[in-house]
Amino acid sequence: GKNVTAEEKLKDLDITLPPAPSAVAAYLPWIRTGSLIMTSGQLPWENGNIKYAGKLGEEVSDRQGYEAARLCAINAISQLNQAAGGLEKICQIVRIEGHIHAAPGFRGHPQVLNGASDLFNAVFGERGRHTRTALGTNEMPLDAAVQISVFAEVAD
Amino acid sequence: GKNVTAEEKLKDLDITLPPAPSAVAAYLPWIRTGSLIMTSGQLPWENGNIKYAGKLGEEVSDRQGYEAARLCAINAISQLNQAAGGLEKICQIVRIEGHIHAAPGFRGHPQVLNGASDLFNAVFGERGRHTRTALGTNEMPLDAAVQISVFAEVAD
Amino acid sequence: GKNVTAEEKLKDLDITLPPAPSAVAAYLPWIRTGSLIMTSGQLPWENGNIKYAGKLGEEVSDRQGYEAARLCAINAISQLNQAAGGLEKICQIVRIEGHIHAAPGFRGHPQVLNGASDLFNAVFGERGRHTRTALGTNEMPLDAAVQISVFAEVAD
Repeated sequence: GKNVTAEEKLKDLDITLPPAPSAVAAYLPWIRTGSLIMTSGQLPWENGNIKYAGKLGEEVSDRQGYEAARLCAINAISQLNQAAGGLEKICQIVRIEGHIHAAPGFRGHPQVLNGASDLFNAVFGERGRHTRTALGTNEMPLDAAVQISVFAEVAD
Repeated sequence: GKNVTAEEKLKDLDITLPPAPSAVAAYLPWIRTGSLIMTSGQLPWENGNIKYAGKLGEEVSDRQGYEAARLCAINAISQLNQAAGGLEKICQIVRIEGHIHAAPGFRGHPQVLNGASDLFNAVFGERGRHTRTALGTNEMPLDAAVQISVFAEVAD
Repeated sequence: GKNVTAEEKLKDLDITLPPAPSAVAAYLPWIRTGSLIMTSGQLPWENGNIKYAGKLGEEVSDRQGYEAARLCAINAISQLNQAAGGLEKICQIVRIEGHIHAAPGFRGHPQVLNGASDLFNAVFGERGRHTRTALGTNEMPLDAAVQISVFAEVAD
């Protein structure tokens, strides 16, 4: 079969990239250093609201957590698109650092973060394969359920 | 207006860089790999003591947290100065990974970490703009209120 | 004295590297970008089981925590060996990001993580000296006592 671009794959998945949030006062949403793009922490924003708030193991179900991680990834892809000047410039997703807002006893971090990993793999194919860390945090900014940071390698 | 160096800006802010703590037994305070300098986790040390101890949302006020993050940044700038052989060699602050010692329900991570971000922006101007992550930790080494790690790009 | 290779040093320490766990479904155990190798989060696996489970300050003693960090490091060295095609290709261990599964009030993060740092220093000598972060997490995937990620620079 012929190669499918990341844009085509997003269309297949019925995903429209949201606008990449512009720079906030004190820091940048992404930066490039050498051939690496690094994003700031991405939260499950949708239309200006945190769509998934609360802790995994309490208010937020595992399934909602998966969707929250997927939404963080959609926001991250939008940042990478802006940073690289198009998703075909991304030659490799390098790393996802994943953080779960965890209630006492929660252990499903990997399954939740698969919501981000599965999307990167679906959209970028081989170029989407990445390293990952999965950690719990007791208190998350804005009460968000999930936060991810993404490192990607760009070719140009 | 003419360009102001980072050293001049520190002087304007009445900040004297402390000596960069020398290497401890088991690990290094900073390392360079390619054009990147990475610091170890920086704590709010002043004259050999942790100046801000405890949790945000309990013993440590938001204002003290902001000052703690600023003090971590002063220590980080001292490390970058030593690593790069002068602050004018730093061409970009790339990333601040920020961690808040958070009591249950604390949500003010971004405002606290602005204590570090604002200082980097003030001292380095455009070169100081950076990506950032903001996370909570339930228990922090040495009971410190804040910990930051800094990545910076160096030119030479 | 003559130079001792990392393999010889492992033998001196009576450490046999375990097989590097192969890629799991959603993410990779390591990746190379430029001259950097980054591992995914390494847990204290031994023969397919998490050998040290629970929280420091509760079920897991400081001594067990040290051994857990050392075991994470053994697994990381196995990953680096596979990633670089031999440990002599590793020119510098750059960074250990260390996370402790911490019960309320635990403060011994640095001593626990020395289990990883000491091993890297013993096996790689000068090449093993690294930056480090030490943080607590309230809930760890698989209830593991410790998690580390490692960045290393490779020459070829």
